[in-house]
Amino acid sequence: MFKEQLRKSAMDKFVAYTKKYTSLDEKELREMLDHIPMSFFSKGTILIRQGEVPEKCFFILEGCARKYSVDEEGREVTSDFMTENQTIAIFSPVDREGSPYSVSCLEDSIMVVGNLAEIEDENKRYPEFAEISQKIVEENMGSLQDEFASFIRLTPEERVKRMINMRPELFERVPQYQLASYLGITAESLSRIKRRLEYEDLKLVD
Amino acid sequence: MFKEQLRKSAMDKFVAYTKKYTSLDEKELREMLDHIPMSFFSKGTILIRQGEVPEKCFFILEGCARKYSVDEEGREVTSDFMTENQTIAIFSPVDREGSPYSVSCLEDSIMVVGNLAEIEDENKRYPEFAEISQKIVEENMGSLQDEFASFIRLTPEERVKRMINMRPELFERVPQYQLASYLGITAESLSRIKRRLEYEDLKLVD
Repeated sequence: MFKEQLRKSAMDKFVAYTKKYTSLDEKELREMLDHIPMSFFSKGTILIRQGEVPEKCFFILEGCARKYSVDEEGREVTSDFMTENQTIAIFSPVDREGSPYSVSCLEDSIMVVGNLAEIEDENKRYPEFAEISQKIVEENMGSLQDEFASFIRLTPEERVKRMINMRPELFERVPQYQLASYLGITAESLSRIKRRLEYEDLKLVD
Repeated sequence: MFKEQLRKSAMDKFVAYTKKYTSLDEKELREMLDHIPMSFFSKGTILIRQGEVPEKCFFILEGCARKYSVDEEGREVTSDFMTENQTIAIFSPVDREGSPYSVSCLEDSIMVVGNLAEIEDENKRYPEFAEISQKIVEENMGSLQDEFASFIRLTPEERVKRMINMRPELFERVPQYQLASYLGITAESLSRIKRRLEYEDLKLVD
């Protein structure tokens, strides 16, 4: 597809998604969203670098990104995957130096990009968009609360089951060792658990 | 202390804390905060009930609260502790029925209370307070991202060490079985790890 078509298709999905957060009708919503800048990023692009102060935040229209950090001992840990209709924002405490995470694109992606330094001016210019963004951030925070609570509660096998139910597309879109890291287990455990679950599934089908 | 004195002392701390989030000077800040309602809650009060749609959000001036849920099998899991200068807010996706968590006071507490239904009107009435709240929510979201990422990365013993460094007061303020649940371990493991760390500490002192 050409970029203009990709842009149009991404915009259609964005309109469908944001509708529930606003009292604007579809025509007004489209007119407003036409002013919102959208960018294309190639697979592998690093959007935020660990140790640097983030200057931008993102909302994914199409694509997939990974949040990860490397600790003092050089271990890389994946702490989130973001896909369509999710935000990428490192909310640093005001006095914090740099981002504790990097975020990179796992796929070619189309995103809405916000400049953090201008966000207050932007919010004044597009108050309806500010309201939509605020609700999306709150919804993202709700999901983060849920993910964390379930992570504490569940055994590794239950975590894999939950992911199969809640975000099955990640198994296709994401390298398995990164998925394992996010689930707090080794890549070997992940494939063992998947095999066992597939076997149980086969027995159910029989 | 009498309630009025408690209120005054809580307000002083609130002013000191919110200063960094606003360009108002201390006098203006105090005048604005004087309009913000504050409530007292006794130890044991349930602020939000699992299964019910939350109507309020809270900001803790003094005190301690616990977020927890009971799953289908009756297991209770603690997923957060909130103390001074933290918010209590269940950000439910718009279409969600009720809160997946309960929140109750572990101590007598003083809190700022917001009615979720009126929050948009309140934000218009006190735009500077809306800005402060927004920044506090973002900072809370940053902490939640950090907590989750570290939970994934760390072993149980490392989680206990991190808590000793980051939130040592919780060991005094919170029942140990709830702390253990939050750390994803049994109460027995928690006291074993604590004993081991104390022993190592003793050796260091020698």
